[in-house]
Amino acid sequence: MKNKFIKNALGRRIPAEINGKKQIPFMGVNKYKPEGKIYSRKIPSNVDYPLDGNKKVINLKEALIKSGLKDGMVISTHHHFRNGDLIANQIFDIAKELGVKDLIWFPSASFPCHEHLIQYLEDGTIHHIEGSMNGPLGKYTSEGKMRGTAVLRSHGGRYQAVQDGEIEIDIAVIGAACADTFGNANGLVGPSASGLLGFALADSEYADKVIVVTDNMVEFPCLPWQIQGNRVDFTVEVEKVGIPERIVSGTTQITKSPDRLYLAELTAKFCEQTGIIRDGFSFQTGAGGTSLAVSDYFSQIMRKKEIKARFARGGSNKYLVKMLEEGQIDYILDGQTFDLDGVKSMAKNPNHVWTSPFTSYNFHSKGNFAGMVDVVILGATEVDVNFNANVVTHSDGYLMHGIGGWQNCLFSKTVILPIPLFRDRIPVIMDEVTTICGPGELIDVIVTERGIAINPLRTDLIEKVKNSGLPITTIQELKDEAEKICGKPEKPVFSDEVIAAIKWVDGTVIDVVKKVEK
Amino acid sequence: MKNKFIKNALGRRIPAEINGKKQIPFMGVNKYKPEGKIYSRKIPSNVDYPLDGNKKVINLKEALIKSGLKDGMVISTHHHFRNGDLIANQIFDIAKELGVKDLIWFPSASFPCHEHLIQYLEDGTIHHIEGSMNGPLGKYTSEGKMRGTAVLRSHGGRYQAVQDGEIEIDIAVIGAACADTFGNANGLVGPSASGLLGFALADSEYADKVIVVTDNMVEFPCLPWQIQGNRVDFTVEVEKVGIPERIVSGTTQITKSPDRLYLAELTAKFCEQTGIIRDGFSFQTGAGGTSLAVSDYFSQIMRKKEIKARFARGGSNKYLVKMLEEGQIDYILDGQTFDLDGVKSMAKNPNHVWTSPFTSYNFHSKGNFAGMVDVVILGATEVDVNFNANVVTHSDGYLMHGIGGWQNCLFSKTVILPIPLFRDRIPVIMDEVTTICGPGELIDVIVTERGIAINPLRTDLIEKVKNSGLPITTIQELKDEAEKICGKPEKPVFSDEVIAAIKWVDGTVIDVVKKVEK
Repeated sequence: MKNKFIKNALGRRIPAEINGKKQIPFMGVNKYKPEGKIYSRKIPSNVDYPLDGNKKVINLKEALIKSGLKDGMVISTHHHFRNGDLIANQIFDIAKELGVKDLIWFPSASFPCHEHLIQYLEDGTIHHIEGSMNGPLGKYTSEGKMRGTAVLRSHGGRYQAVQDGEIEIDIAVIGAACADTFGNANGLVGPSASGLLGFALADSEYADKVIVVTDNMVEFPCLPWQIQGNRVDFTVEVEKVGIPERIVSGTTQITKSPDRLYLAELTAKFCEQTGIIRDGFSFQTGAGGTSLAVSDYFSQIMRKKEIKARFARGGSNKYLVKMLEEGQIDYILDGQTFDLDGVKSMAKNPNHVWTSPFTSYNFHSKGNFAGMVDVVILGATEVDVNFNANVVTHSDGYLMHGIGGWQNCLFSKTVILPIPLFRDRIPVIMDEVTTICGPGELIDVIVTERGIAINPLRTDLIEKVKNSGLPITTIQELKDEAEKICGKPEKPVFSDEVIAAIKWVDGTVIDVVKKVEK
Repeated sequence: MKNKFIKNALGRRIPAEINGKKQIPFMGVNKYKPEGKIYSRKIPSNVDYPLDGNKKVINLKEALIKSGLKDGMVISTHHHFRNGDLIANQIFDIAKELGVKDLIWFPSASFPCHEHLIQYLEDGTIHHIEGSMNGPLGKYTSEGKMRGTAVLRSHGGRYQAVQDGEIEIDIAVIGAACADTFGNANGLVGPSASGLLGFALADSEYADKVIVVTDNMVEFPCLPWQIQGNRVDFTVEVEKVGIPERIVSGTTQITKSPDRLYLAELTAKFCEQTGIIRDGFSFQTGAGGTSLAVSDYFSQIMRKKEIKARFARGGSNKYLVKMLEEGQIDYILDGQTFDLDGVKSMAKNPNHVWTSPFTSYNFHSKGNFAGMVDVVILGATEVDVNFNANVVTHSDGYLMHGIGGWQNCLFSKTVILPIPLFRDRIPVIMDEVTTICGPGELIDVIVTERGIAINPLRTDLIEKVKNSGLPITTIQELKDEAEKICGKPEKPVFSDEVIAAIKWVDGTVIDVVKKVEK
């Protein structure tokens, strides 16, 4: 494959074409504006659908055949069932059985349970995957074994790509905890309850054919219709769409590690000191142990100050739900529920609101929610001295994670990364990250166990922490300290072969990942 | 204007072009399938919107100027404020002030309060109106005074036309009872509560610029977001968007007329006798006095039989709300609330569901709700011996009503029209209706005070009422009886000038209305 390379605004060399499609290199934050029109499907007609609304077919195979499954199609799925997903693997089992080749799988994320699909990458059933590459699929891709190039997008970027027609979904298969035969569906009720189905919204809106699969078929109307039956072609009832205990965690837990608790506490103190925690503020934390601890410290500070937050953006979990129920938060604006308490709360509490990558994250909209959030707490595998950060590759160069909502959240008013200075004796802060997923200008604060570095662009925050007693330092000092302890890390060795592209929120390419040399 | 005319499938002569656009004549029910693609807007970018989500501008004039208001644009509004709307008139007052000409007003319906706009049709500010022509605007149009041709569409047809790009909205102005500065809006809470905003959904999705105007600006997030702020360009706070007592009725009342009560009772008995009223059935009635009486009879029959309905499609009102609250209906799937009880119920009861013309009526979808309704009770100004019916013109030939959801409801499993045999000594049943709005093959039963006529196509219903004791007759006999009493009515005299087109649910032209000769 001869490919021209172009340097993007961060100096990364980007191939002119990926998977045969022309690419736009990252031009800088807020620098690229699209010229085109929103992708449009063929106009459907009621004439082609049963008047009584019953679109149920006998099984998934039948639905895929009726949808016209054929070589080279783009097949999409969502990841609300996480590592308990039983649908994606079945789709490709059926494709294999039917002898269909060269499919492109376009999941909103992949999980270790999808290791099953490696055989289909091997035998030609699947050509390549565009979506996050977690675990086994990441390793497979990093070893250069996949025929096409992986394309990783943020949650908002995936919506944007579908909306803008960067990728045209032929068949979307949407697993749902609850659906009616018309195709109205939600993730709220049933043995495979996952909370919401927002990651399938773009698929339902823009795919040529849409199949809803459920193990809990209810009488019309299935309410609320997180997915609208008016966008659905076929419905299928199966025995099981997911493995409940792998869909949502029964128990999310705050970290017990003293190091991580310290990071969380320091983060919360920083937010208190800088006035970020004020009456009516808003925040977003993840569901990792450190993030949960940050929420908990926030809760304590709010109680002490007798203030409340207007909203928290989820990933919801039992700690957020408790804050909502105790009146510490007016609303949870939730993108995915991480535990059973989250699911239950969403099903019953109108102030626990299901959102979507469209409302929260789509950069090619007339605004989104991300910019309205006062503070967001995120992670990173690596951060460099220019505050650029990496979330997809490990220090060994392997592609191991998806981007999730991480890039989208960088548009929040203050972005804080509480991270350890090193992991397994490898520095997390370095001269240059392996893969740039987020440009440093959007990352405001790095909180480590050895001190807090504030991005020099945020003179306002630097001013506010003067004389605060907080352990303020610089990113360079943090890097030096990490290297003093661990030594300068060896760089992973890559070949020239590009195995994955990392898209920015506007569809441009911010970086690529190369094949790891053994 | 030289125009070629083409006969459509009902024998009506349709101009080849209307308002300079090529028309497709009605081809018969389920005969026309669109070939094109869904209309697509330019891709927007967050770059052009405030990161903090605050899109508020000083006033409506400013919002219109920023939206680029200029000659010839299509300006849309919704009719949820009904005769209490204060927004549409203001838009054109501003346009007049700015000297903008030849606008096309594209409301989801017009009301007598919009008589104010006749001056702008006269002075050239407005070129023509595409939407229902109630009262004064209908008279004005029927007298041939409007420059362009009116285009009347059903609620579903309006969604279809916007979705399909038959009409491209330049600026949508959406009045809302409640909104935040980002543009999230609903009709549920505030002095101008109208229940829902479904008639503005297509506008919010497909218009180039979208302005939300409210007299109740709340802190983000305004919930539920019936209109999503991610689709909104500007928000405006005004003192008053509507006159509450003209938006919703304080009291909807069952008819007290013995004639109409008889029609309602006969309709209900017919539904009981034919087994339409069964456990888990569904129905839709309007908010007129007779329709309300039908609901009430349904309620009595259901109580007697100890059964319940799965859902009622609204227009909701206090009678439906009572049935919902007493457990006689599982769900109200509501398109518009007709009284305060409806609004209150929708705001608090999750089983009182807000729908939209997209979910309920759009014919160019993958199905809609209309076909799932077991029985629908509708009105008509005229019905002919072939069961064709008219809802837009009166016997004097004047355009006086919009189509509303009437055409869309014809796809329900059984369509019943309880109508008097004559009004003001003019027969309602005749040889040929003035304007065909619905083809006879979709209209199943005519209930009059002199008997019930069943469409011969419905052999199943004819079979079921044998020996029922119901006063079954034929449409021809009903017509003859009407003429025996009133005499053969004089036909209105029309010129050749087409003043309005009546669209079918698929965008084809089912009939036209001509200028009334004085």
